[in-house]
Amino acid sequence: MLGFSPISKKRKRVSVCLTPAMVDLFKVEESIAVVIDVLRATSSMCVAFDHGVERIIPVESIEDCMAYRQQGFLVGGERNGEMVEGFDFGNSPFSYKNPALKGKTIAMTTTNGTQAIHAVSHAKKIVVGSFANISVLTEWLGKQDENILLVCSGWKNRINLEDTIFAGAMVKRLRQWYDLHEDSALVAETLFKAANFRKRYFLKNSSHFQRLMHLNLQEDVKYCLRKDTHPVIPIMENGSLVNLLASRK
Amino acid sequence: MLGFSPISKKRKRVSVCLTPAMVDLFKVEESIAVVIDVLRATSSMCVAFDHGVERIIPVESIEDCMAYRQQGFLVGGERNGEMVEGFDFGNSPFSYKNPALKGKTIAMTTTNGTQAIHAVSHAKKIVVGSFANISVLTEWLGKQDENILLVCSGWKNRINLEDTIFAGAMVKRLRQWYDLHEDSALVAETLFKAANFRKRYFLKNSSHFQRLMHLNLQEDVKYCLRKDTHPVIPIMENGSLVNLLASRK
Repeated sequence: MLGFSPISKKRKRVSVCLTPAMVDLFKVEESIAVVIDVLRATSSMCVAFDHGVERIIPVESIEDCMAYRQQGFLVGGERNGEMVEGFDFGNSPFSYKNPALKGKTIAMTTTNGTQAIHAVSHAKKIVVGSFANISVLTEWLGKQDENILLVCSGWKNRINLEDTIFAGAMVKRLRQWYDLHEDSALVAETLFKAANFRKRYFLKNSSHFQRLMHLNLQEDVKYCLRKDTHPVIPIMENGSLVNLLASRK
Repeated sequence: MLGFSPISKKRKRVSVCLTPAMVDLFKVEESIAVVIDVLRATSSMCVAFDHGVERIIPVESIEDCMAYRQQGFLVGGERNGEMVEGFDFGNSPFSYKNPALKGKTIAMTTTNGTQAIHAVSHAKKIVVGSFANISVLTEWLGKQDENILLVCSGWKNRINLEDTIFAGAMVKRLRQWYDLHEDSALVAETLFKAANFRKRYFLKNSSHFQRLMHLNLQEDVKYCLRKDTHPVIPIMENGSLVNLLASRK
């Protein structure tokens, strides 16, 4: 099944960049970049926006984040999976399930996710993907007339299983509108098909899952693998993320 | 099943580097590197050694290859899948099925395979893998007491399907002696399991397969996907590849 494009005869393409280390191999400036860090940064961002957070400023270093704190912003994130001393929040999705966050701006830095956002800062548009927003995000992408680049945050430039599987889930849905570009899209999709319906079992073998288990974060992992829990579209706008769907609420 | 190590209680590890672009993320100098370029460089090298070729000098540029030719060496290889003008051979395995090659030295340059060999020149040992020599190679690796790094040549630093699948086939066999290190080993193995027994069908979707079909190289592809057709172990020795098993013949 080739599907059809509602936009044009000449179909646009979807590519998968399996780690930020490979980002220079892709035409980022001609693409909408979807940044993926399933465990846990991009999942937590979706939770935060769904609880009314107005802006998330992705920050590369802990020092820059603390500078935002001194200016009165809330700050969140982690290094190597653990909360940073002096931060208001860690990287758990549950930290952001808080109605008191409505209207707030949060500066956030994580080991991989916020770094990946910076690696694609020259993209046409930057949005954030996770199982929490997969359906609204893919439906919105289906209406765009641009090439799509799915950017897995990985772990310190290495490939990780959960982001690759999630990219594969998106490829499977985007196929109806987009052509697959390069083998990494096919690799991700095949992996997703092999993993689906037994995601947690499958992820038990992954290095980051084991890292989080060691930190007692089972509930975080379970939550991050649930689909469509937070139907928001975090999108970059003047250096910070906002919820594209906020006006609908 | 954890299997057991015949060598030591502390099991060594097998890692997969999915493209030469990621090689700096691995401890190459502490590993035996297995260079993989299934379609077609490392398959053709196995064919050549099985037909008595004494040495293959992996060369990075066409110019350097031509310099070897002026010194009287045979030269082979390709660029973008096509034979290079003035070369004695292309990259087809069938070119190297020639008893007249016995005892000869060939300088070879290819778009990806020979480049990958140079990218891991600081490895403890460098060997060459393909379906043609998978069983003798993995059995030999099982007896080594070193970490193993499977290096996929990919396509111009991008990930390709056939090398990833082959790396997965090796991971599945090496598991009995080695622990898997990092998620890319798991990604490759899962892909192999999904692809196995329908390899050609699966590869029809891959970008390099389509490139080779366009060049009418179906028979080359079929040949390169056959297992154990040429039980040799090409290994680097003083800047060129020799067959480790040659003395057995």
